[in-house]
Amino acid sequence: MTCNPRYEILFEPMRIGPVTAPNRFYQVPHASGMTNALPRVRAAFREAKAEGGWGVICTGACSIDPSSDDTPLPFATLWDDNDIRAHALMTEAVHRHGALAGVELWHGGASVMNRTSRLPPLSPSGIPWMATHVGFMGNLRPKTMDKADMKEVLRCQAEAARKARTAGFDVVYVYAGMGYLGYEFLLPEYNHRTDEYGGPIENRVRFVREMIEVTRDAVGKDCGVALRVSLEELRGRPGRNQPSEAHELIELLADLPDLFDVKMDSSPTDCSASRFTGEGSHEPVIDFVKSLTKKPVVGVGRFTSPDTMVSQIRRGVLDFIGGARPSIADPFLPAKIREGREAEIRECIGCNICISSWHDGVPVRCTQNPTAGEEWRRGWHPERVERADTPERILIVGGGPAGLECALTLGQRGHEVTLADGSRGFGGRLTFEKTLPGLSAWNRVVDYRLGRLGDISNVSLYPESFLGADEIIDLAPDRVVLATGARWTNMLYSSLEIPVGRLDHAEVFTPDDIAAGRLPQGPTLVFDFDNYYMGGVLTEHLAAQGVPVSYVTPAGQASAWTIMTNELPLVHRALAYRNVPVTTLHLLKSFDGETATLAHLFTGWESRIACRSVLIVGLRLPRSELFEALTERADALAAVGIRSVDRIGDTLAPGAIVHAVHSGHKLAREIGTKVRWQPYRRDTPIVDAVADFDMRTAAE
Amino acid sequence: MTCNPRYEILFEPMRIGPVTAPNRFYQVPHASGMTNALPRVRAAFREAKAEGGWGVICTGACSIDPSSDDTPLPFATLWDDNDIRAHALMTEAVHRHGALAGVELWHGGASVMNRTSRLPPLSPSGIPWMATHVGFMGNLRPKTMDKADMKEVLRCQAEAARKARTAGFDVVYVYAGMGYLGYEFLLPEYNHRTDEYGGPIENRVRFVREMIEVTRDAVGKDCGVALRVSLEELRGRPGRNQPSEAHELIELLADLPDLFDVKMDSSPTDCSASRFTGEGSHEPVIDFVKSLTKKPVVGVGRFTSPDTMVSQIRRGVLDFIGGARPSIADPFLPAKIREGREAEIRECIGCNICISSWHDGVPVRCTQNPTAGEEWRRGWHPERVERADTPERILIVGGGPAGLECALTLGQRGHEVTLADGSRGFGGRLTFEKTLPGLSAWNRVVDYRLGRLGDISNVSLYPESFLGADEIIDLAPDRVVLATGARWTNMLYSSLEIPVGRLDHAEVFTPDDIAAGRLPQGPTLVFDFDNYYMGGVLTEHLAAQGVPVSYVTPAGQASAWTIMTNELPLVHRALAYRNVPVTTLHLLKSFDGETATLAHLFTGWESRIACRSVLIVGLRLPRSELFEALTERADALAAVGIRSVDRIGDTLAPGAIVHAVHSGHKLAREIGTKVRWQPYRRDTPIVDAVADFDMRTAAE
Repeated sequence: MTCNPRYEILFEPMRIGPVTAPNRFYQVPHASGMTNALPRVRAAFREAKAEGGWGVICTGACSIDPSSDDTPLPFATLWDDNDIRAHALMTEAVHRHGALAGVELWHGGASVMNRTSRLPPLSPSGIPWMATHVGFMGNLRPKTMDKADMKEVLRCQAEAARKARTAGFDVVYVYAGMGYLGYEFLLPEYNHRTDEYGGPIENRVRFVREMIEVTRDAVGKDCGVALRVSLEELRGRPGRNQPSEAHELIELLADLPDLFDVKMDSSPTDCSASRFTGEGSHEPVIDFVKSLTKKPVVGVGRFTSPDTMVSQIRRGVLDFIGGARPSIADPFLPAKIREGREAEIRECIGCNICISSWHDGVPVRCTQNPTAGEEWRRGWHPERVERADTPERILIVGGGPAGLECALTLGQRGHEVTLADGSRGFGGRLTFEKTLPGLSAWNRVVDYRLGRLGDISNVSLYPESFLGADEIIDLAPDRVVLATGARWTNMLYSSLEIPVGRLDHAEVFTPDDIAAGRLPQGPTLVFDFDNYYMGGVLTEHLAAQGVPVSYVTPAGQASAWTIMTNELPLVHRALAYRNVPVTTLHLLKSFDGETATLAHLFTGWESRIACRSVLIVGLRLPRSELFEALTERADALAAVGIRSVDRIGDTLAPGAIVHAVHSGHKLAREIGTKVRWQPYRRDTPIVDAVADFDMRTAAE
Repeated sequence: MTCNPRYEILFEPMRIGPVTAPNRFYQVPHASGMTNALPRVRAAFREAKAEGGWGVICTGACSIDPSSDDTPLPFATLWDDNDIRAHALMTEAVHRHGALAGVELWHGGASVMNRTSRLPPLSPSGIPWMATHVGFMGNLRPKTMDKADMKEVLRCQAEAARKARTAGFDVVYVYAGMGYLGYEFLLPEYNHRTDEYGGPIENRVRFVREMIEVTRDAVGKDCGVALRVSLEELRGRPGRNQPSEAHELIELLADLPDLFDVKMDSSPTDCSASRFTGEGSHEPVIDFVKSLTKKPVVGVGRFTSPDTMVSQIRRGVLDFIGGARPSIADPFLPAKIREGREAEIRECIGCNICISSWHDGVPVRCTQNPTAGEEWRRGWHPERVERADTPERILIVGGGPAGLECALTLGQRGHEVTLADGSRGFGGRLTFEKTLPGLSAWNRVVDYRLGRLGDISNVSLYPESFLGADEIIDLAPDRVVLATGARWTNMLYSSLEIPVGRLDHAEVFTPDDIAAGRLPQGPTLVFDFDNYYMGGVLTEHLAAQGVPVSYVTPAGQASAWTIMTNELPLVHRALAYRNVPVTTLHLLKSFDGETATLAHLFTGWESRIACRSVLIVGLRLPRSELFEALTERADALAAVGIRSVDRIGDTLAPGAIVHAVHSGHKLAREIGTKVRWQPYRRDTPIVDAVADFDMRTAAE
């Protein structure tokens, strides 16, 4: 197939100073969670995108000095020769496919805690960034930088830029965004200086200008110099000669960098979840940039539609289509557009599990793309699977995310697959969840897989087909895969933070009841110790149905885990908008049909809330009846030649959709093979340049 | 000097099955945060304790299999040959000093999230451990183990035990404590099984028994086998033949391991802070163990007094004096007792900064011992410092934790040190803070240093000596070190989580006002966005003084960061005991002398609280007047030969006491030397046994 002429503009080569990108698809710097400790994992992850047609591939934040140490959050480094070699694996991998490699040189300023280096964090004026959530919070405040500190950071930036050039990077960044050092100089909340680096915007921009200049001097004509800058907050301040200080900032720096990479300034707005924000949400904040500079501009907006991309360029909003999340969900997005295969794009669902990986301190995960981060360590290519030596007849019971992914991948491997589900359609938990406030985009998990299955003749779909052990034995497939999901329980939660006991009462509901269309009557208390989205979104759902509802959780926030997916502030706003009272730090102890008794998590002090119903969003347990029935009939299975009964997804271990898709994919890759003693290859840092130290000398 | 005969019993050799410990000082397994990624850092950290006289030195938790993956929390591994070599560095280092090396083999069961391995966590019955605080919370629930899973874990334990023997360990653990796998089988809350592994205690102990048996088979007569077990919760259940199930457990396993390592079952009780719990707190829970087994027993209790240690042994509570925190605060504790130098013991203050390091995912830190974790990477020995080539006259202004540590270390290096402070005594912030509820033990930071300074003739102490720039120039030392501390400000906090603006009102207090003896009158609102101990403890203090007080914070919990130090639940209880209303997730917006206006952190919705005073526990900024005055007179300084003016502690970067002590020590080690381009040596994993992978093959 060939490219739709309407989309050809996306494939024009574009200059970035002295270097030229092969097209307009630009994977902006984004966290991979991989760090220099996993250089082969990282290189293969980035390489998949270059192979898939992205014209520019960047690293995530790369520290220029131990005074920018983000532990325990993952970050790359460019401090020594080993670091150069580690990054060179990535640039070589990217160059093999004709793409440019960019590096986001980074100093975190007051937003890092230097927990490993134990150096005082640096800042313009001693103003810390302090989150309200444990883990990002620290108890060391930053030092106010003096002139020597600034000179030293400029020296480190220049030195890191030179190392970046040596490592083979084509585009080198100056980073003045989020709460990081460059941005702290730009923003009056952080910058209280009275010297030539503080005061009016002309002064506040000085340090960033110097960072760009030393970078340019360091790399000469070998690399493009990009400026990544947040504009959101600056925009709030009127300028003197321009509508805002953000305008003045761009005007002041218009000719200096070779590229502007523009973005928002907080994780929840910069990388917002689809639950609350649509495609292209940055446009109103960054749309003026191109009017003030002739340099190319890249920005993001969770773009997955080629028409939207073309519109951004035609309307003069962007020159490059920046992608982070969509490039993780589908590394081959550009190739699919180029080849007229738009229908095959695996669209990002905006669930932000990827960003949660960074917050969790681990390599990136993706709900849509189970191969993300697994390219090297498990040898999984995002588009290709190994053909089975001997095709088998495989029956999958259950067509939710795990079953669909398993069916698709087994089908691609050449097996004869039957996918049966007792429901009218496929989708499993998503059949209900996609109808909940803000979650419609999540159904792309189902849409993509059903769409692809439509192109494969060796997978047969049987909806409305309830299969018991007898029917399965009658069908006598070579193998059985169970993807029968999980059910929510009415278990309560102890002050030891363990699910314990059950609350049995006619007016106690679980999410399964709501999914089945059973709605509580009268004032309802939602008790949430699942802590991810379900408790919050069902509370919204009930309130929208007119049920008076209040929300109780033992955590410190509503849907507490959604701080990891950047959704938490918006969950609170959504509940407030519905006038839902939120009670944190409390357990549900009992319920008698009229009153729920709560206990404070730490003190045990009891309180009461009047309500007629209770919805417990707590522990899920596998639907394991079918597995148990088959296990009991092992002889009968053997007699008809069924070689294995495997479980995937929630029926193996209840989790989020990301876990289900990964589980289904993993089994499809590994079915019939002996599980290795170690489930993945362990990556190791490059240590060529380190001398062997004598412990005795060190310790004595 | 020689050992006090009363303490000689502590130095008796003790058998642990086939191996013999040289004395009763037993560094029980404790987290170091170092992992196999920092093998030299780890070996040197453990070696310092062996050199200091501890008879047994153990690792922290060491995973036996990728299905026990605690990321992002630090943990060691014994999965492959590189791991063996990494641990061998530690065992060799420990053996050099005649101590035994132990390894805490570990499977986390349902308490790990397997965020890196992406395998389903394992558990007896699918019951997860779920914390209410982000970072420990996950959204994947554990798989219920079948017989094949149990067999596989037993195989992994045996294989890891063999690897441990190869690595040179003398004592190999089976771990059935905290929320980890072995304990989950013991505890009915986790274990709902209906097979021979569930039900009565005889059945629930079966898996642990098998773990011990396979370990014994694996190591044969080469290593002692230790069982580490939590007893706290089991104790709550009456037994049939014994007072409790915990008694029955010990009775059932009495002859099986070579050593019992007994402990509590939650981090806040097992490793409790001195603020709420005294020395020897485990005794009431573990004192029965020796009555039921002839095997040696080790337990902990933050023991720093040799008399308490002897008492534990004489009274038949313990055979080995277990130490974790005291061994970090003073690796040479046993040597100092042996040599009759008890007065020189650097006693653990029980602040639990060490455990916070693990929660932070970084190598261990210690308030009392700034060299902890720095033995290899910065080359700092806990007891020895390098003599200065040329002694200099050094003036230190400010005798708080940073100034005292700096004076002591500079004195030990042979410099002529003058330490001046404007107050009547030394101690800085601790002069006040030691008087606050529960914080008296923290003053050991001051007591230890003043005691040691009493033995050093080349450090002169000048209390009640206020020094300005003129006086310093008159004194004309070779160098000046400023340790003038920080002051609390009346800054507020924005919804962007940045300190911003100031609240000016006669009835607005800061902690400095309280320290100066100024007490608010009438109902007082404490607004805490510092989030460590100060807000909570001052609230307690005010309530104890009879001031009606309420507490407000933008965090989700009171003193939210104290979750890292295991204090948080007890802070909440302490505030509840004083009837203090706690409001979370709110900012203070304004105060007019009668009413404080709050705003919800996420929604901005306002509410009001009537109060006559406000205490803001928020941002600290350095006391920098003296530094600025000296900086302005650079010429005068040069004229009298003052070579440098350095800052340490809070006046450089406000932090916790741990930061101040480290800062003072670091400067004392480094003064007069050129700062290296990299502030510490970077450790790297052992990768000898990894083949070189070809990226191209992997990704294509």
